[in-house]
Amino acid sequence: MFDKITETSLLYDFYGRLLTEKQRDVMNLYHQENYSLSEISNEFGVSRQAVHISLKNAEKSLREYEEKLGLVKRFEESRAAIKEIDNKLGLLIGEHSDDAVLKIRLESIKAIIDNLEI
Amino acid sequence: MFDKITETSLLYDFYGRLLTEKQRDVMNLYHQENYSLSEISNEFGVSRQAVHISLKNAEKSLREYEEKLGLVKRFEESRAAIKEIDNKLGLLIGEHSDDAVLKIRLESIKAIIDNLEI
Repeated sequence: MFDKITETSLLYDFYGRLLTEKQRDVMNLYHQENYSLSEISNEFGVSRQAVHISLKNAEKSLREYEEKLGLVKRFEESRAAIKEIDNKLGLLIGEHSDDAVLKIRLESIKAIIDNLEI
Repeated sequence: MFDKITETSLLYDFYGRLLTEKQRDVMNLYHQENYSLSEISNEFGVSRQAVHISLKNAEKSLREYEEKLGLVKRFEESRAAIKEIDNKLGLLIGEHSDDAVLKIRLESIKAIIDNLEI
Protein backbone atom coordinates (compact mmCIF):
# COMPACT_ATOMS: atom_id res chain seq x y z
CA MET A 1 0.00 0.00 0.00
CA PHE A 2 2.80 2.41 0.85
CA ASP A 3 6.38 2.53 -0.25
CA LYS A 4 8.93 1.81 2.44
CA ILE A 5 9.81 5.40 3.27
CA THR A 6 6.22 6.54 3.56
CA GLU A 7 5.37 3.53 5.69
CA THR A 8 8.28 4.21 8.02
CA SER A 9 7.33 7.89 8.29
CA LEU A 10 3.75 7.01 9.12
CA LEU A 11 4.83 4.50 11.73
CA TYR A 12 7.23 7.07 13.17
CA ASP A 13 4.49 9.69 13.19
CA PHE A 14 2.24 7.41 15.23
CA TYR A 15 4.63 5.55 17.49
CA GLY A 16 7.90 7.49 17.42
CA ARG A 17 7.34 8.81 20.93
CA LEU A 18 7.58 5.25 22.23
CA LEU A 19 11.16 4.88 20.98
CA THR A 20 14.19 5.86 23.05
CA GLU A 21 15.52 9.38 22.57
CA LYS A 22 18.64 7.99 20.85
CA GLN A 23 16.53 5.96 18.42
CA ARG A 24 14.43 9.02 17.63
CA ASP A 25 17.57 11.09 17.01
CA VAL A 26 18.99 8.50 14.62
CA MET A 27 15.69 8.10 12.79
CA ASN A 28 15.28 11.85 12.45
CA LEU A 29 18.75 12.32 11.03
CA TYR A 30 18.33 9.45 8.60
CA HIS A 31 14.71 9.87 7.49
CA GLN A 32 14.06 13.59 7.96
CA GLU A 33 17.46 15.16 7.48
CA ASN A 34 18.66 12.61 4.92
CA TYR A 35 21.98 12.05 6.65
CA SER A 36 23.90 9.01 5.41
CA LEU A 37 24.80 6.20 7.79
CA SER A 38 28.41 7.41 7.74
CA GLU A 39 27.42 10.97 8.60
CA ILE A 40 25.30 9.76 11.52
CA SER A 41 28.12 7.51 12.73
CA ASN A 42 30.45 10.55 12.72
CA GLU A 43 27.84 12.61 14.55
CA PHE A 44 27.49 10.08 17.37
CA GLY A 45 31.05 8.74 17.35
CA VAL A 46 29.93 5.16 16.80
CA SER A 47 30.46 2.72 13.95
CA ARG A 48 28.43 2.82 10.77
CA GLN A 49 27.28 -0.70 11.62
CA ALA A 50 26.03 0.42 15.05
CA VAL A 51 23.94 3.13 13.39
CA HIS A 52 22.56 0.57 10.95
CA ILE A 53 21.57 -1.75 13.78
CA SER A 54 20.02 1.10 15.76
CA LEU A 55 17.89 2.10 12.74
CA LYS A 56 16.79 -1.48 12.09
CA ASN A 57 15.88 -1.99 15.74
CA ALA A 58 13.90 1.25 15.81
CA GLU A 59 12.00 0.29 12.65
CA LYS A 60 11.36 -3.17 14.08
CA SER A 61 9.92 -1.62 17.25
CA LEU A 62 7.66 0.64 15.22
CA ARG A 63 6.38 -2.32 13.20
CA GLU A 64 5.74 -4.29 16.38
CA TYR A 65 3.69 -1.43 17.82
CA GLU A 66 1.66 -1.37 14.62
CA GLU A 67 1.18 -5.15 14.72
CA LYS A 68 -0.18 -4.81 18.23
CA LEU A 69 -2.25 -1.65 17.87
CA GLY A 70 -2.98 -1.33 14.13
CA LEU A 71 -3.60 2.41 14.46
CA VAL A 72 -1.84 3.41 11.23
CA LYS A 73 -4.05 0.96 9.32
CA ARG A 74 -7.13 2.28 11.12
CA PHE A 75 -6.24 5.88 10.30
CA GLU A 76 -5.42 5.08 6.69
CA GLU A 77 -8.79 3.43 6.14
CA SER A 78 -10.55 6.46 7.60
CA ARG A 79 -8.42 8.78 5.50
CA ALA A 80 -9.38 6.97 2.29
CA ALA A 81 -13.08 7.14 3.14
CA ILE A 82 -12.83 10.81 4.00
CA LYS A 83 -11.07 11.56 0.73
CA GLU A 84 -13.90 9.83 -1.12
CA ILE A 85 -16.49 11.92 0.73
CA ASP A 86 -14.52 15.06 -0.02
CA ASN A 87 -14.45 14.24 -3.75
CA LYS A 88 -18.16 13.47 -3.85
CA LEU A 89 -18.98 16.71 -2.05
CA GLY A 90 -16.75 18.64 -4.45
CA LEU A 91 -18.67 17.22 -7.41
CA LEU A 92 -22.05 18.00 -5.85
CA ILE A 93 -20.98 21.57 -5.12
CA GLY A 94 -19.93 22.00 -8.74
CA GLU A 95 -23.21 20.64 -10.01
CA HIS A 96 -25.34 22.80 -7.71
CA SER A 97 -23.52 26.07 -8.11
CA ASP A 98 -26.82 27.70 -9.15
CA ASP A 99 -28.46 26.90 -5.80
CA ALA A 100 -26.75 29.31 -3.41
CA VAL A 101 -28.23 27.94 -0.19
CA LEU A 102 -27.48 24.31 -1.02
CA LYS A 103 -24.00 25.24 -2.24
CA ILE A 104 -23.16 27.09 0.97
CA ARG A 105 -24.37 24.21 3.10
CA LEU A 106 -22.42 21.65 1.12
CA GLU A 107 -19.37 23.88 1.38
CA SER A 108 -19.78 24.11 5.15
CA ILE A 109 -19.72 20.31 5.31
CA LYS A 110 -16.71 20.14 3.01
CA ALA A 111 -14.91 22.69 5.22
CA ILE A 112 -15.28 20.41 8.25
CA ILE A 113 -13.86 17.51 6.22
CA ASP A 114 -10.97 19.61 4.94
CA ASN A 115 -10.06 20.66 8.48
CA LEU A 116 -10.08 17.11 9.80
CA GLU A 117 -6.60 16.20 10.97
CA ILE A 118 -6.80 12.61 10.08
CA MET B 1 -14.72 15.29 28.56
CA PHE B 2 -15.37 11.64 29.49
CA ASP B 3 -16.29 10.04 32.75
CA LYS B 4 -13.63 7.85 34.31
CA ILE B 5 -14.98 4.51 33.09
CA THR B 6 -15.41 5.65 29.50
CA GLU B 7 -11.96 7.21 29.51
CA THR B 8 -10.39 4.01 30.83
CA SER B 9 -12.28 1.91 28.24
CA LEU B 10 -11.13 4.16 25.43
CA LEU B 11 -7.54 4.05 26.62
CA TYR B 12 -7.79 0.29 26.94
CA ASP B 13 -9.30 0.03 23.45
CA PHE B 14 -6.35 1.93 21.99
CA TYR B 15 -3.40 0.78 24.06
CA GLY B 16 -4.54 -2.38 25.88
CA ARG B 17 -2.40 -4.58 23.64
CA LEU B 18 0.68 -2.88 25.06
CA LEU B 19 -0.10 -4.09 28.59
CA THR B 20 1.09 -7.43 29.94
CA GLU B 21 -1.28 -10.36 29.58
CA LYS B 22 -1.87 -10.40 33.34
CA GLN B 23 -2.71 -6.70 33.36
CA ARG B 24 -5.15 -7.22 30.49
CA ASP B 25 -6.81 -10.11 32.31
CA VAL B 26 -7.26 -8.06 35.47
CA MET B 27 -8.59 -5.07 33.55
CA ASN B 28 -11.01 -7.23 31.58
CA LEU B 29 -12.40 -8.87 34.69
CA TYR B 30 -12.76 -5.55 36.48
CA HIS B 31 -13.97 -3.25 33.69
CA GLN B 32 -15.72 -5.64 31.27
CA GLU B 33 -16.95 -8.44 33.50
CA ASN B 34 -17.58 -6.22 36.52
CA TYR B 35 -15.80 -8.51 38.95
CA SER B 36 -15.05 -6.97 42.34
CA LEU B 37 -11.48 -6.66 43.57
CA SER B 38 -12.16 -9.53 46.00
CA GLU B 39 -13.50 -11.78 43.26
CA ILE B 40 -10.44 -11.09 41.11
CA SER B 41 -8.12 -11.73 44.04
CA ASN B 42 -9.83 -15.12 44.57
CA GLU B 43 -9.53 -15.88 40.87
CA PHE B 44 -5.78 -15.27 40.81
CA GLY B 45 -5.00 -16.37 44.35
CA VAL B 46 -3.41 -13.02 45.26
CA SER B 47 -4.36 -10.37 47.80
CA ARG B 48 -7.05 -7.80 47.11
CA GLN B 49 -4.37 -5.16 47.53
CA ALA B 50 -2.21 -6.78 44.83
CA VAL B 51 -5.16 -6.66 42.41
CA HIS B 52 -5.74 -3.01 43.28
CA ILE B 53 -2.08 -2.17 42.59
CA SER B 54 -2.11 -4.13 39.34
CA LEU B 55 -5.18 -2.22 38.15
CA LYS B 56 -3.69 1.14 39.11
CA ASN B 57 -0.41 0.32 37.36
CA ALA B 58 -2.23 -0.78 34.22
CA GLU B 59 -4.30 2.42 34.17
CA LYS B 60 -1.17 4.47 34.75
CA SER B 61 0.55 2.77 31.80
CA LEU B 62 -2.44 3.45 29.56
CA ARG B 63 -2.44 7.13 30.57
CA GLU B 64 1.29 7.35 29.90
CA TYR B 65 0.82 5.92 26.41
CA GLU B 66 -1.87 8.51 25.76
CA GLU B 67 0.35 11.30 27.09
CA LYS B 68 3.02 10.23 24.62
CA LEU B 69 0.90 9.42 21.60
CA GLY B 70 -2.37 11.35 22.09
CA LEU B 71 -4.22 9.02 19.74
CA VAL B 72 -7.41 8.83 21.79
CA LYS B 73 -7.64 12.62 21.73
CA ARG B 74 -6.96 12.65 17.98
CA PHE B 75 -9.65 10.06 17.32
CA GLU B 76 -12.16 11.79 19.55
CA GLU B 77 -11.71 15.09 17.75
CA SER B 78 -12.24 13.36 14.41
CA ARG B 79 -15.26 11.53 15.75
CA ALA B 80 -16.90 14.79 16.88
CA ALA B 81 -16.31 16.39 13.47
CA ILE B 82 -17.69 13.35 11.68
CA LYS B 83 -20.79 13.36 13.85
CA GLU B 84 -21.35 17.00 12.94
CA ILE B 85 -21.03 16.19 9.22
CA ASP B 86 -23.41 13.29 9.61
CA ASN B 87 -26.01 15.52 11.28
CA LYS B 88 -25.68 18.20 8.62
CA LEU B 89 -26.04 15.63 5.83
CA GLY B 90 -29.10 14.15 7.55
CA LEU B 91 -30.74 17.59 7.61
CA LEU B 92 -29.90 18.25 3.95
CA ILE B 93 -31.33 14.87 2.92
CA GLY B 94 -34.55 15.67 4.77
CA GLU B 95 -34.85 19.05 3.10
CA HIS B 96 -34.20 17.70 -0.40
CA SER B 97 -36.38 14.64 -0.28
CA ASP B 98 -38.18 15.88 -3.42
CA ASP B 99 -34.97 15.79 -5.49
CA ALA B 100 -34.36 12.07 -5.97
CA VAL B 101 -30.94 12.35 -7.60
CA LEU B 102 -29.56 14.79 -5.03
CA LYS B 103 -31.06 12.77 -2.19
CA ILE B 104 -29.46 9.52 -3.42
CA ARG B 105 -26.09 11.18 -3.77
CA LEU B 106 -26.24 12.75 -0.32
CA GLU B 107 -27.26 9.39 1.08
CA SER B 108 -24.29 7.72 -0.59
CA ILE B 109 -22.02 10.20 1.16
CA LYS B 110 -23.80 9.65 4.47
CA ALA B 111 -23.40 5.89 4.03
CA ILE B 112 -19.63 6.25 3.81
CA ILE B 113 -19.65 8.35 6.98
CA ASP B 114 -21.88 5.87 8.80
CA ASN B 115 -19.55 3.00 7.92
CA LEU B 116 -16.45 4.82 9.11
CA GLU B 117 -14.95 2.91 12.01
CA ILE B 118 -13.63 5.87 13.84
